[in-house]
Amino acid sequence: MTPAELTQYLHEKIPLTRAMELRVVSANRAEFIVTAPLEANHNHLGTAFGGSLSALATVAGYAFIWHELGDASAHVVIRDSSMNYRRPVRGELRAVCVMPSIEEIDAFRETFARTGKARLNLTVQIEDAAEFSGTYVALR
Amino acid sequence: MTPAELTQYLHEKIPLTRAMELRVVSANRAEFIVTAPLEANHNHLGTAFGGSLSALATVAGYAFIWHELGDASAHVVIRDSSMNYRRPVRGELRAVCVMPSIEEIDAFRETFARTGKARLNLTVQIEDAAEFSGTYVALR
Repeated sequence: MTPAELTQYLHEKIPLTRAMELRVVSANRAEFIVTAPLEANHNHLGTAFGGSLSALATVAGYAFIWHELGDASAHVVIRDSSMNYRRPVRGELRAVCVMPSIEEIDAFRETFARTGKARLNLTVQIEDAAEFSGTYVALR
Repeated sequence: MTPAELTQYLHEKIPLTRAMELRVVSANRAEFIVTAPLEANHNHLGTAFGGSLSALATVAGYAFIWHELGDASAHVVIRDSSMNYRRPVRGELRAVCVMPSIEEIDAFRETFARTGKARLNLTVQIEDAAEFSGTYVALR
C-alpha cells in the first residue's frame, strides 16, 4: 500500500482519523511517518491536544504493523501504551515510528505466520515534544 | 459549570471533542463521567478505537481538574499517561474518573493557590474494558 492508499484505508475504517485529518506521509522500511494539522487538533491553549497526540501515535503503530504484515486477515489490537509529554507542539503534529530491528520484525512475522498470534513493542516519537510506547498484538 | 456547559466549553476549545461527539454526563463530587458514541469512535473491527478511548480519558482528567479548580486563569497540562486495554468496547465509550480523596484534592488546591503550580495523578476507568492513569499539572 502507498501512503495515500493507507491514509484512505484509515479514513474509511477509523472515522476519527478523518476528523483529525490524519495523513500517512511515509510508509517504507526507512521511515514511517503520520501527520495531522494543528487546526483540527488543538486544545484550549492553541497547542496540540494530548488526546490527538496519543491517538496519532496509536494509529502510527497500528498502521506500521498492518503495513509490515501485509496480511488482510490479521487483526491488530493494542494492549497497553504510555505517553510522555515533554513540551507543547505548536505546529503540525508529526508521529515518527522508531524502526524495530530487522531481527525483531522477522521474529514478529515468523511467530505470526506459525502461531497466528504475535506481539510487538513500538516506540513513536512526536518530534522532540512527546514519546509514545505501545504493545500491539496481531491475531489471525 | 453544569455538565452541558462543560461539554459546550470542550467542544469550543478542543475541536476533536466535537468530532468525537464527547459529552460530559456527570460533573460533581460523587461522580465525573464523560461519554462518546461508538458510531463516531469505532475502529476497523467495529469496536472502540484505542485512540478515542485514550483521548476520552485524557479529556475526562482535564475536565475534572478544571471543574475542581474553578479558576479560569489555570492552565492544565498533561505530563504523562498510560493506558491498559483489557477487552474491546462494543457500545458507548464511557470514562469514569476515580475520585481522589478529599485530602488529595484539598492539597492540590492549596498548593495551586499558594505556589501557582500543582500536580495531580488521576485514574480513569473505561468500564471494565480499559484503565487510564495520567499526571496533570495546573499552572497559573
